[in-house]
Amino acid sequence: MSPNQLKNMLEQVANGTLTVQNALSQLKHFPTDTIQQQGQTIAQLDTHRELRHGFPEVILAQGKKFAHLNAITSRALNHKRNLLITRIGKKRAAKLLANHPQLTHHPLPRCVTWQPTANQPNIGLVAVLCAGTSDLAVAEEAALTARMLGAQVETHYDAGVAGLHRLLAASTLLQTARVFIVVAGMEGALPSVVGGLVDRPVIAVPTSQGYGASLGGIAALLGMLNSCASNVTTVNIDNGFGAGYVAALINRTSMP
Amino acid sequence: MSPNQLKNMLEQVANGTLTVQNALSQLKHFPTDTIQQQGQTIAQLDTHRELRHGFPEVILAQGKKFAHLNAITSRALNHKRNLLITRIGKKRAAKLLANHPQLTHHPLPRCVTWQPTANQPNIGLVAVLCAGTSDLAVAEEAALTARMLGAQVETHYDAGVAGLHRLLAASTLLQTARVFIVVAGMEGALPSVVGGLVDRPVIAVPTSQGYGASLGGIAALLGMLNSCASNVTTVNIDNGFGAGYVAALINRTSMP
Amino acid sequence: MSPNQLKNMLEQVANGTLTVQNALSQLKHFPTDTIQQQGQTIAQLDTHRELRHGFPEVILAQGKKFAHLNAITSRALNHKRNLLITRIGKKRAAKLLANHPQLTHHPLPRCVTWQPTANQPNIGLVAVLCAGTSDLAVAEEAALTARMLGAQVETHYDAGVAGLHRLLAASTLLQTARVFIVVAGMEGALPSVVGGLVDRPVIAVPTSQGYGASLGGIAALLGMLNSCASNVTTVNIDNGFGAGYVAALINRTSMP
Amino acid sequence: MSPNQLKNMLEQVANGTLTVQNALSQLKHFPTDTIQQQGQTIAQLDTHRELRHGFPEVILAQGKKFAHLNAITSRALNHKRNLLITRIGKKRAAKLLANHPQLTHHPLPRCVTWQPTANQPNIGLVAVLCAGTSDLAVAEEAALTARMLGAQVETHYDAGVAGLHRLLAASTLLQTARVFIVVAGMEGALPSVVGGLVDRPVIAVPTSQGYGASLGGIAALLGMLNSCASNVTTVNIDNGFGAGYVAALINRTSMP
Amino acid sequence: MSPNQLKNMLEQVANGTLTVQNALSQLKHFPTDTIQQQGQTIAQLDTHRELRHGFPEVILAQGKKFAHLNAITSRALNHKRNLLITRIGKKRAAKLLANHPQLTHHPLPRCVTWQPTANQPNIGLVAVLCAGTSDLAVAEEAALTARMLGAQVETHYDAGVAGLHRLLAASTLLQTARVFIVVAGMEGALPSVVGGLVDRPVIAVPTSQGYGASLGGIAALLGMLNSCASNVTTVNIDNGFGAGYVAALINRTSMP
Amino acid sequence: MSPNQLKNMLEQVANGTLTVQNALSQLKHFPTDTIQQQGQTIAQLDTHRELRHGFPEVILAQGKKFAHLNAITSRALNHKRNLLITRIGKKRAAKLLANHPQLTHHPLPRCVTWQPTANQPNIGLVAVLCAGTSDLAVAEEAALTARMLGAQVETHYDAGVAGLHRLLAASTLLQTARVFIVVAGMEGALPSVVGGLVDRPVIAVPTSQGYGASLGGIAALLGMLNSCASNVTTVNIDNGFGAGYVAALINRTSMP
Amino acid sequence: MSPNQLKNMLEQVANGTLTVQNALSQLKHFPTDTIQQQGQTIAQLDTHRELRHGFPEVILAQGKKFAHLNAITSRALNHKRNLLITRIGKKRAAKLLANHPQLTHHPLPRCVTWQPTANQPNIGLVAVLCAGTSDLAVAEEAALTARMLGAQVETHYDAGVAGLHRLLAASTLLQTARVFIVVAGMEGALPSVVGGLVDRPVIAVPTSQGYGASLGGIAALLGMLNSCASNVTTVNIDNGFGAGYVAALINRTSMP
Amino acid sequence: MSPNQLKNMLEQVANGTLTVQNALSQLKHFPTDTIQQQGQTIAQLDTHRELRHGFPEVILAQGKKFAHLNAITSRALNHKRNLLITRIGKKRAAKLLANHPQLTHHPLPRCVTWQPTANQPNIGLVAVLCAGTSDLAVAEEAALTARMLGAQVETHYDAGVAGLHRLLAASTLLQTARVFIVVAGMEGALPSVVGGLVDRPVIAVPTSQGYGASLGGIAALLGMLNSCASNVTTVNIDNGFGAGYVAALINRTSMP
Repeated sequence: MSPNQLKNMLEQVANGTLTVQNALSQLKHFPTDTIQQQGQTIAQLDTHRELRHGFPEVILAQGKKFAHLNAITSRALNHKRNLLITRIGKKRAAKLLANHPQLTHHPLPRCVTWQPTANQPNIGLVAVLCAGTSDLAVAEEAALTARMLGAQVETHYDAGVAGLHRLLAASTLLQTARVFIVVAGMEGALPSVVGGLVDRPVIAVPTSQGYGASLGGIAALLGMLNSCASNVTTVNIDNGFGAGYVAALINRTSMP
Repeated sequence: MSPNQLKNMLEQVANGTLTVQNALSQLKHFPTDTIQQQGQTIAQLDTHRELRHGFPEVILAQGKKFAHLNAITSRALNHKRNLLITRIGKKRAAKLLANHPQLTHHPLPRCVTWQPTANQPNIGLVAVLCAGTSDLAVAEEAALTARMLGAQVETHYDAGVAGLHRLLAASTLLQTARVFIVVAGMEGALPSVVGGLVDRPVIAVPTSQGYGASLGGIAALLGMLNSCASNVTTVNIDNGFGAGYVAALINRTSMP
Repeated sequence: MSPNQLKNMLEQVANGTLTVQNALSQLKHFPTDTIQQQGQTIAQLDTHRELRHGFPEVILAQGKKFAHLNAITSRALNHKRNLLITRIGKKRAAKLLANHPQLTHHPLPRCVTWQPTANQPNIGLVAVLCAGTSDLAVAEEAALTARMLGAQVETHYDAGVAGLHRLLAASTLLQTARVFIVVAGMEGALPSVVGGLVDRPVIAVPTSQGYGASLGGIAALLGMLNSCASNVTTVNIDNGFGAGYVAALINRTSMP
Repeated sequence: MSPNQLKNMLEQVANGTLTVQNALSQLKHFPTDTIQQQGQTIAQLDTHRELRHGFPEVILAQGKKFAHLNAITSRALNHKRNLLITRIGKKRAAKLLANHPQLTHHPLPRCVTWQPTANQPNIGLVAVLCAGTSDLAVAEEAALTARMLGAQVETHYDAGVAGLHRLLAASTLLQTARVFIVVAGMEGALPSVVGGLVDRPVIAVPTSQGYGASLGGIAALLGMLNSCASNVTTVNIDNGFGAGYVAALINRTSMP
Repeated sequence: MSPNQLKNMLEQVANGTLTVQNALSQLKHFPTDTIQQQGQTIAQLDTHRELRHGFPEVILAQGKKFAHLNAITSRALNHKRNLLITRIGKKRAAKLLANHPQLTHHPLPRCVTWQPTANQPNIGLVAVLCAGTSDLAVAEEAALTARMLGAQVETHYDAGVAGLHRLLAASTLLQTARVFIVVAGMEGALPSVVGGLVDRPVIAVPTSQGYGASLGGIAALLGMLNSCASNVTTVNIDNGFGAGYVAALINRTSMP
Repeated sequence: MSPNQLKNMLEQVANGTLTVQNALSQLKHFPTDTIQQQGQTIAQLDTHRELRHGFPEVILAQGKKFAHLNAITSRALNHKRNLLITRIGKKRAAKLLANHPQLTHHPLPRCVTWQPTANQPNIGLVAVLCAGTSDLAVAEEAALTARMLGAQVETHYDAGVAGLHRLLAASTLLQTARVFIVVAGMEGALPSVVGGLVDRPVIAVPTSQGYGASLGGIAALLGMLNSCASNVTTVNIDNGFGAGYVAALINRTSMP
Repeated sequence: MSPNQLKNMLEQVANGTLTVQNALSQLKHFPTDTIQQQGQTIAQLDTHRELRHGFPEVILAQGKKFAHLNAITSRALNHKRNLLITRIGKKRAAKLLANHPQLTHHPLPRCVTWQPTANQPNIGLVAVLCAGTSDLAVAEEAALTARMLGAQVETHYDAGVAGLHRLLAASTLLQTARVFIVVAGMEGALPSVVGGLVDRPVIAVPTSQGYGASLGGIAALLGMLNSCASNVTTVNIDNGFGAGYVAALINRTSMP
Repeated sequence: MSPNQLKNMLEQVANGTLTVQNALSQLKHFPTDTIQQQGQTIAQLDTHRELRHGFPEVILAQGKKFAHLNAITSRALNHKRNLLITRIGKKRAAKLLANHPQLTHHPLPRCVTWQPTANQPNIGLVAVLCAGTSDLAVAEEAALTARMLGAQVETHYDAGVAGLHRLLAASTLLQTARVFIVVAGMEGALPSVVGGLVDRPVIAVPTSQGYGASLGGIAALLGMLNSCASNVTTVNIDNGFGAGYVAALINRTSMP
């Protein structure tokens, strides 16, 4: 329901062409597309989200039973909008593509996508940097997300702080990107170093890479939250999607 | 042993028709039904619990070896009372039903039940809400438990706080239920929002859904314990059973 | 704004006696009473809460600067409704009473109250039990809250699990209360034992009493969340207020 | 040293008017202004930061001995640029102002500032929302920081999720701000709710408000990191400064 | 090397029949029996431990590669003393028994034993109690250990605090045992209750039974460490062996 | 109430000289001595504890308001039995002695005691060892407790594992004590080393001494729970009292 | 690029034989060897590390997809330098050796190595001690690493603190090694004891061996960080590689 | 007792000029200097430590009562050796100097020292770097310790990773020091960056500087333990002393 539709509806109430009761009904039922299985609601697709956020609903596959995931996907495909499914393993992706051959599987970032309409050209520039080869999956999830949401993306990988020259080699990217996504596991120091080199927002993504006292990424997360660089904000461990989403948002806002 | 039986017994001691020794024996052995395997006690069914609590013993399958679970189930079935077995996986449920075909398996909430006698009609109204599709299993465990214990239950699923209109669509349920069970993973914010909208008790159930800094549900649990809504109490992570149990208790008490 | 007032307003919109713009204004500004200091909003009293929850706004003194606390109290007193201020230390309470002599200070539970109108007689029965003398402050906060919200309350203190006969001495209370608040620090075992003895809801309140591995009440909190008694729900550490609030809610609901 | 100066210097090396040795010396010593006390370096002011970041150096007062803080402030004042000192208590601020009367003290956000030059008009719109009166200090630190760095700021306080109408009352602000700072303690749910309502970046600031299981703000922090709203990133507990800094950065970037 | 042997040796040094060099050699090499594989020492059997502790070396199977475990077992069997192998899974136990048919496997407590010599009759009385059927494996490990080390053992299982009469049914055992081992998962309250009922030492064993906020047994462990009963000491989570060992030690010491 | 008194009472019920009602009353009220202040019960002295445990009630001063502590002490003194008050600071002890001059203050272990009757000679031998001078207060609390409860105690202090010869100097004590209390902060390694040297029970007491990653004694506590010596059990951080209590219990039991 | 090469290049800039532009290009691209797969950079081999650190790049296999690991290995082999791959499981090692038969697999320390050139004789002496047989894998990883990096290494295993004579048997090694690596799980006390016996640096390696409150090695790690021996530093849990690396560094530095 | 003295004594036992009994006595009592107060041993000075470690005993003031600290200091001064007292506050230092005017107080590193004999010239080079002005106290404790133990020390302060040029300005120090101490709070990234730039050992010291999610230095500690630079080992939070001690040890060992 667009803002105009909403305004029209309220005016209809005012001029009597719409009863209070009917207005309530429309407001209540419109913005979600309810999905049921065996008589039970399993999901409410938030079809207003695109209006509110400018992006289609994204489906987090993890934690959903396959039957539920499949039903939600089917319904989402009906809306014929760009679709992004995240955190989906190889086997479940294959099963999903068997049912919905129009989908594309991206194994490294563990995503499935569909882009039914010709895209507008991507805009701006989001930089995605990561510290080690082990962080690639999360970095690619961030890059794919930002691209799906309309941003141009450039990546620079395996640039950990213990070999600074590998980072400094990306000086052009450091000078031109509008927003930075910096992915790192272990001690998670890379976002602080990048944050000190650039004057634009840095979104830090801790990864669960490491062992022992890395505590599944908590060490990197804490490092990033305590960054001595003032331009760093942080998302959840391994949350490449969230970083890509916010980066695309900032990138889009910053277009001249 | 009913309160009357107890009073009778003490009076028998008083009037000499029961010796002290015999009274002690009765008191000691009556309220439990001891189960043995290979000469070793493995469980003591608490047959008094129904008297004390109004509900039959519930069997937590998790952590029990199958041989033990099976023996305890057999004995419980002998008592011909409603029976609820929780946290039982697909394979063990199948094995148990092979031995006891009268049982019913509920795969989503991972429960097994038996209702040997015609139920009285369920009463009152317990609302079960959950934040995302991934929380369904826990929500369904809560709903099934409350129904087994005599409550009418209505559910409203996938109503996370990031799309408030999905929650507000349940306004009738919000106004009529006597007690609310609110199930949420990730940041666990839904109980606070529901708590602010209703003037009845809200039982919050954190789930282990999420990743990284969700710490297996600890994030949601802490969020619920710190709720700024005063009518919220909390149970253990994924403890749909406990929430359903207490909700049924409150619901039953509140009957006119 | 009562439900009837709301309905009237919507009907006025429908019959044209109220413009959309004016309706929005009323809906926006009515339910809160905004408090400012030096041109800055410091609080929005939720004057609708009583309609929604049946109880007046409660003020958490902790964390508020005294100037803010004082201003909020002044405004709340204007509403001439029962008022409960929690977590207020001795010095700040004295300072507040100097400004507002109609208030009453309760030093043990660290509360300040005002009851401007003749109370209806309190109803039902809420039992408050605690494990040790050190838990008294929290137990009294729970009892005072429940009384302020209309419940009859009976207390039974210093009944820790290491001396069970001290608990069993309260057998009459155990049999008659509609809902139980059980306060305990250290290992927090008392709610489980009480929960096994009664067939009504038990609200467990962990306290920060203890030292070393009590971790400021975390040990007790975890114990309560893992209670083997099914009728136990839990609130935050030292949250006597929350327990009293929910208990009063359940107690009120359960009136015939 | 401006980029042009740097380019000139390298060209001088190339055409022989500058020796390698001298170039190294300039490069090494220029960008920091070293401060010594009793023959010992205590700080290196990063005078290049403004070039790199567009903002002057900010001084974190917490953890610094007063003698060190005072010396660093004196030197910073020499640069005659805008200055922001954060996390400074009442007593230390008074002592600092006694030495440097040109400074201004802001007691609520615990900051000291100096704005020697006529400011350009502030631009854009940063919204600062907070959940409760207790979170005001952190929210004001964020607002002051963003203003110092050139942003227009509007605030909306005491809008916790347990009274949603208090948040919805800010609908104009929700529709017009370019970036949101959302400050909350306890369960930290407000950023998720705001994130669901707007399509611009939300910077979540957990506060240490709360008690018991709030764990000094860890509960709120975890809630925000696990937000189900995709447009939320998070900074450290009580880090109003960091949030204001990044918000100003995004706000500035997004100017047409 | 017995105390007498040691005294003799020192006297030989004193009277010159043993050189200093030779004495050092004897002292250095005697008390351990070194085991090598492929030229590398993998273990040093502590053959003096029986002298020092009165019990044979016990082998913790967990964490050892099978080849190492097998080699250590072979060597230990050569000493023809009672042997106890703990924390050994079904498959590895079968493989070990195939190599060493004289061994006996105890699947529930996950132990393997050998008792080559006729035992002296076991003495005293150690009571092993556990809270739920799920705690049986740990309780049985404790009981088996105490029996292997010479104690008479009596068990009383499934006596959780939510059904106190099940515990009180063991009143004879409560009055006669010299030392108590109390095994419990979840909230771990049973040792406190038993500790309040008896005037002898209680060794509390937390188990990893439970889910969510049980944190793999940490909740039970913290509960036991904070026990309000003064006669309770605690061992590691699931450490039935340690509890059985200390109980046997106390039981033996207390023999008249 | 002695066991004989209890048997007599039950026989009176049997022969009609005592009504059921009266028997219940006696059983209910006898074993506790209830203390009230301002019409409110603040404590129930467990006067049966001596019968059950052989030791008088001990008062934990920490966490009790002084008025409550004082009232409980007065009542306890009426019973004219040995009395031990633990965790009492210097100022509160002075105030308590001013009211009750018969008490003795022990500043280092922060205890107050009264021994009204000529003691029987202390028996057995409890060894108290500690790792560093900073652990003395806890070690002395353990020693005083064990002495109050009838044990002979010998101490050996400042014997940390980084200077093993300091420990080995106590070889006589290591060979003769019946039970060991080993107090250590920081890494808490001393109990493991002592445990390897002796064949009697070792009670490990972690202390909160240390800084940083000692986490207030958690590091030492974890070290002790994971001891590779099988004869070690553990009590709470800084719980010298608990260790002294259990050691006295074991020491007494082991008397011929 | 050797230091001399760098100096030459800068001099060429100075005398005009190299343009600024070309100098930048050389500096930017030289020190890394970039590896791509499917058009995407997956790793940047740090070929300067040997210059800077004196050792070849080491590959951490854990967390890398096999395709990436294989590609990186291929490129590294081209450099014909000593190569060490750590944390590689049995199956992946076999697959890697199938592709690169010149590699050697070390199953116990989970490493793969290649030594293409005749080694110089190893120097100095690094001692590797471990507490139990279960810690062997980590100890061997440390020993292999130190040997690969040029150190002579001697090992002494299964020398836990609960049997001190097993440690003291290594007195010659204790007196002659230049640096000590001490590996221990459970309570992690061995480094403190060794640290007290020697006057050279001790590198403590906690292992994840243990269960329950060992928290996957956190208990041992905390113990080592809190060591009362002043000559102990610590590396991450199970980080045998890191310990071996630093030990070789110290050992090499200490050569006359 | 020197090695020669020990050899002599054993030879005397062998040739009969020393009885076994007397030898034991000498060995038992010699290496410690026992300090008593009011008949109680409070400390055992480890006078052999210098022989074993090459450095005098160091006194950790924190956690010791002043009377104990004073007595230990008096005794240590008798030995007329270099003395270092760490973690002593301003007031206690003044009190100690009043009693022992020969001592010197160092307020920033919170140490007290005495150097009775003309020092040999300090040798080698230890670099101490720190990230921010707030870390100075810990860095100075490290520097003072290393100097007291015979090392030349050079410092470079306020060189955090968010302004890399401040670190690179210390290039000469980075190339010449034999061992590095790197002190950092907040995210603790500096040791990783330094570790990547140098080929000698780096000792990382986390500080408790920071707030919120710095968790009192745990964030920095975890970052350092997870460093991606292989030449980094770590000591406890704020443990400047430990870092200085080990650095001096390595520095001394590495002398030609």
